[in-house]
Amino acid sequence: MVKIGLLGLGTIGRGIVEIINERREYLKAATGVDLRIKTALVRDINKKRDVDLSDIILTDNFEDILGNEEIDILVEVTGDLESAYDYITRGLKAGKHIVTANKAVVSKYFEEISQLAAEKDLAFLYEASVGGGIPVLKPLREQLALNRIDQVQGILNGTCNYILTRMVNENKEYDEVLKIAQRLGYAEADPTADVKGHDTLRKLRILASLALQGKIQEEDIILYGISNISKLDVENIKKMDSTIKLIAEAKRVYNGFTAIVQPTIVKNNNYFANVNMAFNSISFTGNFVGELKFYGAGAGKDPTANAVLSDCLDIALNSYRKGNPLGKESLVNLNSELMGRYYLRISKASRDILERLEDMTKELLTDEQVIKNKKEGFDLAIITKLVKLSSLNDLIANLGLEKDQYFLAKIME
Amino acid sequence: MVKIGLLGLGTIGRGIVEIINERREYLKAATGVDLRIKTALVRDINKKRDVDLSDIILTDNFEDILGNEEIDILVEVTGDLESAYDYITRGLKAGKHIVTANKAVVSKYFEEISQLAAEKDLAFLYEASVGGGIPVLKPLREQLALNRIDQVQGILNGTCNYILTRMVNENKEYDEVLKIAQRLGYAEADPTADVKGHDTLRKLRILASLALQGKIQEEDIILYGISNISKLDVENIKKMDSTIKLIAEAKRVYNGFTAIVQPTIVKNNNYFANVNMAFNSISFTGNFVGELKFYGAGAGKDPTANAVLSDCLDIALNSYRKGNPLGKESLVNLNSELMGRYYLRISKASRDILERLEDMTKELLTDEQVIKNKKEGFDLAIITKLVKLSSLNDLIANLGLEKDQYFLAKIME
Repeated sequence: MVKIGLLGLGTIGRGIVEIINERREYLKAATGVDLRIKTALVRDINKKRDVDLSDIILTDNFEDILGNEEIDILVEVTGDLESAYDYITRGLKAGKHIVTANKAVVSKYFEEISQLAAEKDLAFLYEASVGGGIPVLKPLREQLALNRIDQVQGILNGTCNYILTRMVNENKEYDEVLKIAQRLGYAEADPTADVKGHDTLRKLRILASLALQGKIQEEDIILYGISNISKLDVENIKKMDSTIKLIAEAKRVYNGFTAIVQPTIVKNNNYFANVNMAFNSISFTGNFVGELKFYGAGAGKDPTANAVLSDCLDIALNSYRKGNPLGKESLVNLNSELMGRYYLRISKASRDILERLEDMTKELLTDEQVIKNKKEGFDLAIITKLVKLSSLNDLIANLGLEKDQYFLAKIME
Repeated sequence: MVKIGLLGLGTIGRGIVEIINERREYLKAATGVDLRIKTALVRDINKKRDVDLSDIILTDNFEDILGNEEIDILVEVTGDLESAYDYITRGLKAGKHIVTANKAVVSKYFEEISQLAAEKDLAFLYEASVGGGIPVLKPLREQLALNRIDQVQGILNGTCNYILTRMVNENKEYDEVLKIAQRLGYAEADPTADVKGHDTLRKLRILASLALQGKIQEEDIILYGISNISKLDVENIKKMDSTIKLIAEAKRVYNGFTAIVQPTIVKNNNYFANVNMAFNSISFTGNFVGELKFYGAGAGKDPTANAVLSDCLDIALNSYRKGNPLGKESLVNLNSELMGRYYLRISKASRDILERLEDMTKELLTDEQVIKNKKEGFDLAIITKLVKLSSLNDLIANLGLEKDQYFLAKIME
C-alpha cells in the first residue's frame, strides 16, 4: 500500500480523491499498487465537502502529516506559493516524495527543490504544473533526453485561450468575454495571474529550463498579457486571415536563448489556430526528433488530477527518471535581439504619433479618412516592418502612452 | 556501462550508432549512463558502411551476441518478422532486455512476447514501433494508466500520408505521386505494406490493445488501403471543403470494440487535415484526461533511432513501467455495427449500378449529363446516407465489381 498525504482539498484535491475512489480496485488488479490517501490537510475540517472522504483523516495541522511515518508521498495541490514551498522542503527533509501541481512553486524554487530532492534521493514530480492533463514533462525529460532541443512553444493558459477564442468567434469585447469566462468557471474572480500572463510565464520557465537545459528563470522572460486586446484588434486580425493566441516561446540562439510570452497573430491555417477554448498545446523542436506537438486539456479537475496521480503511480512503481534533470548549460539571455513584424494598435492616437511611427510602419491598417476626420484622437493600427522588439518598445515608451492605451502582438511567420 | 547488441545496421541501425557517437559524452555527464554498442549483427561483414563503427564488433552470427554475457540489451531493428521473433524470444530466454522498432513482430506476437518478458522480469519496449519519433506508447502506458480509454485514432503511416497530401496539393494521379515518393525515399520499392494499409493496421493493433485493454489482434481489424484512390476522387473531396487521410480508429462500444483502417474524408478545419506529408498524429480519448493528441515525425532515421534509444535509456536508468500492460478485458468485436456516411466512386459504372445504389444514395456527385452521354460506362461518385458499412459492402460485392474498380472512404462527422 502506498500512502499519500494530500495537501489541499480544493478542486484538484477533490478530483484526486474521486479518481482513487473510482479506480482503486482497477489499479490494484492492473498494477498491483494500492494507492490510498491517508490524511488530507484542509483549512476547515468541518466544512461540508461534496466527495466521499471515507478512510481519509482530515487535519488542519501539517505536522500531523509530516510526522506520520506511514505517509510515503506528499501531494501538494494547495495552489499557494509560500506555504507550498514550506510543505515541500520540509516534506523532503522528512523523507517524503513530492508530487505537486503548483507551477508557482516549481517555477520560483525549481533548482533549489530539485537539488534537495536529489540529495535526499526522493522524487520531486510536477507533471500537472504544465499543460494540465497533457503528458508533456515526462516525455520531455525521459524520451527526449538525448536531443538538443532548440525551441519550445506553447499555448499554456486555458483562461487566456478561452477568452481569445470567444472574442474571435463572437466579436465581443474583452471585458464582456472575461465576465462570461468568470461565470462559467474558466476565469477566476481575480483573473490577474492568467490574463496578465504570469501563469503562462511560470510554465514557460519550467518548460524552457527542462528543454534548453539552461537556467532560465522568471525574470529572464519578457511578458505581455492579453488584457489590453480590444474588439477592434480582433477585427483587424481576422482581416489578416488570422487569429490571436497568447504564445510562450523559448529558443536557443547562438550561445544563448530568448524567452517571451506575448499575444501572437497566427494564420488560420497554422497549427496553433486550431487550439481553441480551454485547450493547450506545446511543441518542441529537437535535433533528432524534429518537431513534436502535444495537445489536450490545459486545466480542469479530472485531467489535472490524472496528471498528479500518474506521478504518484510512477513513484509507487519506481518508473520515473531519477536525479536532477536541470541542465548545467550557461546560456546568455539574448532577448534584446528579439525581432519580428508586429501589430500595434494605439488608442487616442494623434497625427504626431502616426508620424513618429513612420519609419517602422510597413502597413497602415487604419483608414486615412478616419485619421482625417477624428479631432479627438483615433484608433491607430499598424503592421511594422521587421524590427527589433527593443527598438519598438523604446519608441512606445517615448510616445508617453498609458499602459492600457496600446496593444502589441507579434505576427508569427 | 550498458552494452547493446544491435540486430541490424540498416537505416535505423545506422541512426542509432550515429546518435550514440554524437551524444555519448553528453549522456554520461547528464545521466551517468554510458551507453555502448558492443556488437552489431549484419548480413555482410565486409560491406562498406557510411558510419563510424569504431569499437563495434560486427558479426553475421546471432549466437555471438546471444552468448555474450556482457550484452544487456538486444536492440532489434532488422525489420524482418520471423527472424526478429526468433531473436527476441531467444534473447529473453537468455536474460537480455529487448528493444524493438519492428511493428510487425510486436503486432503478431504481442501477448506472447510480453508474457515471456514478464516471466523473465525483463524489459520488452517498442516505443519506435508506433508513431516513429512521437513519444506516445510510454505516455499511454504510464501516464494514462488510470483512465478508461474509449477511443484511439491516428494517421499512422508516413508513406500513405505523404502520397495523399501530394495528390491533394498537386492534383496528380496516384501512380505519379507514388513514383515521386519512391524516388524521394518516402515509399519503398515494394510499397504494398504501406499503401495497402498493413503497416497502419499493425500499429492500430498495438495502440488498440494498450488503450482499450482488450485482446485486439490483426484479424480483428477491418482494412482498406489507399491504392485505389484516383485524381477524380481527390477533386470530388476538395469540392467538399475536405481532404483525405488514411485513418486508423479503435473505439470502445457497449461491451465491445470496433477497429478499422480506412481512407477518411476530413473537413479542412479538422485537426487531422493539418497533419500533412510524412507526419503522423495519434489521439486518445480518456475518461479523465479527455482528448489528447500527439503529433510528430512518423518515420525517418533520427526520430526512430531516438525512440529506440530512449527505450534503452529507460532500461539503463530503470525508469520504465514493469510488468505486462496488456489488458485482460474480453471485448467483443462489433465491427459489424460500424456505420457512417461514405464516399463511393465506381469506375466504368452503368445505369444499372446507379439504380441499385439508389436506396443508399444521399447525394449524387456525378453530373447527370455525364451519365447520360457515356455509353461505355462512367465514373460514378456518390455520398451515401447513414448506412452500415457491412450493408454497403454486401451491395458492392453483389455489384460484381473488380477490386480496383471502386474507391470507398468514410466521411468523418
